[in-house]
Amino acid sequence: MRIYEIINKKKRNNTLTAEEIYFAVNGFVDGTIPDYQMSALLMAIYFNGMNAAETTALTMAMVDSGEVLSGLDLGGITVDKHSTGGVGDKTTLAVVPIVAACGIPIAKMSGRGLGHTGGTIDKLEAIAGFKTSFSAAEFLAIIKKHGLCIAGQSANLAPADKKIYALRDATATVDSIPLIAASIMSKKIAAGADAILLDVKTGNGAFMKNLADAEKLAHAMVEIGEGCGRKMSALITDMSAPLGCAIGNALEVREVVLFLQGKRNPLAENLYILCEELAAEMLTLAGHENAREAVQKALASGGALQKFMSMVEAQGGNTAYVENLAREQGGGEKILAPESGYICELDTEGIGIAAMLLGAGRKRKEDAIDYTAGIELKFARGSLVEKGQVVAEFFTENRDSIAEARERFLGCITFSQERVAKSYESPVIARIGG
Amino acid sequence: MRIYEIINKKKRNNTLTAEEIYFAVNGFVDGTIPDYQMSALLMAIYFNGMNAAETTALTMAMVDSGEVLSGLDLGGITVDKHSTGGVGDKTTLAVVPIVAACGIPIAKMSGRGLGHTGGTIDKLEAIAGFKTSFSAAEFLAIIKKHGLCIAGQSANLAPADKKIYALRDATATVDSIPLIAASIMSKKIAAGADAILLDVKTGNGAFMKNLADAEKLAHAMVEIGEGCGRKMSALITDMSAPLGCAIGNALEVREVVLFLQGKRNPLAENLYILCEELAAEMLTLAGHENAREAVQKALASGGALQKFMSMVEAQGGNTAYVENLAREQGGGEKILAPESGYICELDTEGIGIAAMLLGAGRKRKEDAIDYTAGIELKFARGSLVEKGQVVAEFFTENRDSIAEARERFLGCITFSQERVAKSYESPVIARIGG
Repeated sequence: MRIYEIINKKKRNNTLTAEEIYFAVNGFVDGTIPDYQMSALLMAIYFNGMNAAETTALTMAMVDSGEVLSGLDLGGITVDKHSTGGVGDKTTLAVVPIVAACGIPIAKMSGRGLGHTGGTIDKLEAIAGFKTSFSAAEFLAIIKKHGLCIAGQSANLAPADKKIYALRDATATVDSIPLIAASIMSKKIAAGADAILLDVKTGNGAFMKNLADAEKLAHAMVEIGEGCGRKMSALITDMSAPLGCAIGNALEVREVVLFLQGKRNPLAENLYILCEELAAEMLTLAGHENAREAVQKALASGGALQKFMSMVEAQGGNTAYVENLAREQGGGEKILAPESGYICELDTEGIGIAAMLLGAGRKRKEDAIDYTAGIELKFARGSLVEKGQVVAEFFTENRDSIAEARERFLGCITFSQERVAKSYESPVIARIGG
Repeated sequence: MRIYEIINKKKRNNTLTAEEIYFAVNGFVDGTIPDYQMSALLMAIYFNGMNAAETTALTMAMVDSGEVLSGLDLGGITVDKHSTGGVGDKTTLAVVPIVAACGIPIAKMSGRGLGHTGGTIDKLEAIAGFKTSFSAAEFLAIIKKHGLCIAGQSANLAPADKKIYALRDATATVDSIPLIAASIMSKKIAAGADAILLDVKTGNGAFMKNLADAEKLAHAMVEIGEGCGRKMSALITDMSAPLGCAIGNALEVREVVLFLQGKRNPLAENLYILCEELAAEMLTLAGHENAREAVQKALASGGALQKFMSMVEAQGGNTAYVENLAREQGGGEKILAPESGYICELDTEGIGIAAMLLGAGRKRKEDAIDYTAGIELKFARGSLVEKGQVVAEFFTENRDSIAEARERFLGCITFSQERVAKSYESPVIARIGG
């Protein structure tokens, strides 16, 4: 087998065999295939795509390059969840305790953020003392005792994906749906869950800006998961506005705690609905029969809040810090509306970048995060505001960043004289598989 | 300027600026741009192509990477010629002396062969003692005295092309018309001629198998040359049958000498017509007014033969060897027709490969050539042969190669019971530019 022939075959839009895909991935990882041939193959894949069998083979080749976790024996179907990333997406922080409160033990592995979207691990680390790195035995012990644990992803899951991703990042081949699908799914399959729920975002704050691409990505991932014997479900969800009102690590933890405490903010309904939908979907995947009812009960009874607090405690976090966080906050830099009108169109990615400028996210991998930094929105899409009204509060330890962040932020908001309906009634736009 | 953005721009099918193309070529040559980014860019160019301005900029960037010969002061327009390569293509060996005999001094630089097509330099080196490597002063002195010289290409013309070609060869990006056009033209522009005649072959013995691709390549090269201020002309010529009857270095020199001696073989008319057409076209480019008449006169008078012999002498070749070569030859392995019929369809590339198997060409760059090896055809396309009649003679110093070469050769010939017209009346199919 020769890599030249494999590149040429894909370039001519022929289907690669699983053997050819394994040969390319293994050779690239062990260094017998140079990076200049791999990058040519990746660009040919960008142009000619991959079918479901090829994408599944690529996923499995990347899975097989590293450690594969065997399903934890938690006495039932283990369910994992993945979000393609959005602005203010703190759903995992709420969904995991809700599901655990419904009696389904949940072992969640999450990642860090880069660019305009935050990572669940960063958000949890905003809680003083919160640990996200455990041995397999510790991880299992926490889940057995408390029913939930959220840990950082093992570095040795799908190392081929990490190496290929670095090459894609340098050669403008990131934005290929089969390559994105295989990259995400390789880590999810290696993590060993029996069922996987995908939250595929679409809109101007998502990586998939349009619905058609989000649907293609969701289909590709569902096909890969099913090809690997997993139970799959995908929700396509709206990311044309931030989720909830908080953007920034500690601010987002606070918003989740208030939600679990039953203190709903009418401006954050899109977040709450999405958390409930995702939790119900995970429960359904786990075989639960009255998922929606169970979710409502877990929230109303305080069961989900209890699970959240016991997770914080079990993972070494300071529960007093969390409780304090949930009390009335303020003292941020008030951002005033420059004109009156309905807030309709939002540049969601731009709002994420404004929060990053305040210190809430990383521009580069090596950047440090200011956990308390971020933006608290004082409107939802569709709100009518008066000129001079507070539309947001900015939090940062670097006051020099405020001017640039304010300019960026206000440039992301469009004021309209006519009321415009929300694009979607629910943040869930479509459901695929399951 | 960042190479990532340049790759991304071409990937999105936007037009690159000359600055961007120079940045990519210079960075690749000086090592600041790694080969994995260059190969991704080349694959993106394979898919999205390049327009005339981009292809010209690529050519000029490669020209500027090395030595640029200033036009030799030969007292008129200097004319160069390039063939995209074919089986039995010995036209340069005849055309250069014909043109010189018409009073146009000609400084020709040629290359070696690889694969199924031979190179002019290899053919000339079949002549005992023939030198093809000269200092600039020696080269000029020979032309001033004799009116012609054929030398090997300087290693320092367009070194960026050499480096890029090696990467294309490893990443399946050779077969891109803009990349082929820029590669050929970079060496021709660097060689400094005022006018360039292109012989673009099409058919099953050519690199461009179909006419549409050959026309695209010819147009691309003419546009580049004109963009670089050169006078350009291109002939699209037939390569669906070998040119003439001889394939192999010494055999081809012999066929040219016999032609220049006026000893025409009716089976080799396609070669003769093409040589006359190419010579007339070169003369026209050089400003000659009665080109066709002059060509006929140079042949009929023996002037072209004289020029050929004086070139052999000036370049250190053994003229007695050449004269001896032209006498009646024989003693080859006779290949008999396995059936009767008209010989219509030929697998021309396969015939070239059969000659290579006998030792006439190189499989790999480092292979040695058997200068006396090759095939002498005893038919032209359209000939009627009887079963058992001699259809070819094979020459080789490696008799073990004959069986495989015979099988390959006979597999390239189709015998038909009906007479089929030649595909083209003349080997010249179309003319572009000029």
